Amino acid sequence: MSARLRFSYSDLHQTIADGAAQIVASDFQFDVILAIGGGGFIPARILRTYVEKPLIAISLARYHPDEPPSDVPHKLQWVDGVNNMITGKRVLLVDEVDDERTTLAFAIGELLTEGPTEIGVFVMHNKLKEKKADYPDFVKYVFVGKDIEDVWVDYPWDARDIIQHEKDAASGGLIEVNEEEAQAAYRN
Amino acid sequence: MSARLRFSYSDLHQTIADGAAQIVASDFQFDVILAIGGGGFIPARILRTYVEKPLIAISLARYHPDEPPSDVPHKLQWVDGVNNMITGKRVLLVDEVDDERTTLAFAIGELLTEGPTEIGVFVMHNKLKEKKADYPDFVKYVFVGKDIEDVWVDYPWDARDIIQHEKDAASGGLIEVNEEEAQAAYRN
Repeated sequence: MSARLRFSYSDLHQTIADGAAQIVASDFQFDVILAIGGGGFIPARILRTYVEKPLIAISLARYHPDEPPSDVPHKLQWVDGVNNMITGKRVLLVDEVDDERTTLAFAIGELLTEGPTEIGVFVMHNKLKEKKADYPDFVKYVFVGKDIEDVWVDYPWDARDIIQHEKDAASGGLIEVNEEEAQAAYRN
Repeated sequence: MSARLRFSYSDLHQTIADGAAQIVASDFQFDVILAIGGGGFIPARILRTYVEKPLIAISLARYHPDEPPSDVPHKLQWVDGVNNMITGKRVLLVDEVDDERTTLAFAIGELLTEGPTEIGVFVMHNKLKEKKADYPDFVKYVFVGKDIEDVWVDYPWDARDIIQHEKDAASGGLIEVNEEEAQAAYRN
């Protein structure tokens, strides 16, 4: 058995609304929302409802499908063709979770070469754990929807059975599951 | 007063699961999922759970922010840098709703110039109404999650108050609302 956190769509939407309120109340001004796909697609789209800015996306995969697994994410889609919304602009980078910060640190490092004037970060969830990288000084604003404990999270968009997922989420969120069954029930 | 359809996140996830089952059962083979943002971001990300293909995105706005309103969508983000996943490839284009088909027809027309070998379409909802364009013969597969009547739809990701939205959705979906209040409650 192992522990899993299951949040409902509605919970997550509210967490993003809470994060958006922090962004709006802050001094951070930005020109564009940049979603880090796949995980950041849904949080970024919901966030856009509260902070009305243009939304564009990059897509990072954990590794290149044709190469051996590595710690360096693979750029499935990068900012080609939308550099004009990055270079000399203020960018709000959005991802679903700050886990070990590998993806975020990679995305920020690569984005810096495009010459933005500012990069802010919004993560829906921040796992309370040690990170493999610090945010560079260039990143002055980091917004967190909610701090969560360091357990595996099943997000609703990865659920093969959404009815069961929402039931589990409604029953408190943190549940004990059979590892094999959980892996079959989610695409993550 | 005016009528609005309000679907819960869970409803929509299930509609996409139903659509995915049609795709999997069909003869349509594809290499990549191409989301049409902003509306297609969330449906495409959920769809990916059921059809495991790389997910990339374009983003179309109703019109250019610096130009007079027009019927021609504005390409906020196009396929620059990901042409290698379009040219000579089979693409599944995903949007949230086929309304008058303006956005979809535009996206397909533009995509054809990139030389894909096949384009299939998945829409979460199809509004039962007259369309401003037919799908070109090149598009052999069109998958619809659910046909819906021709009324305004409030999607959960556009809700400023998600608790109220989910309540309305749970009470049957089609509701009569005060137009001004509804416009303030949703970003659409």
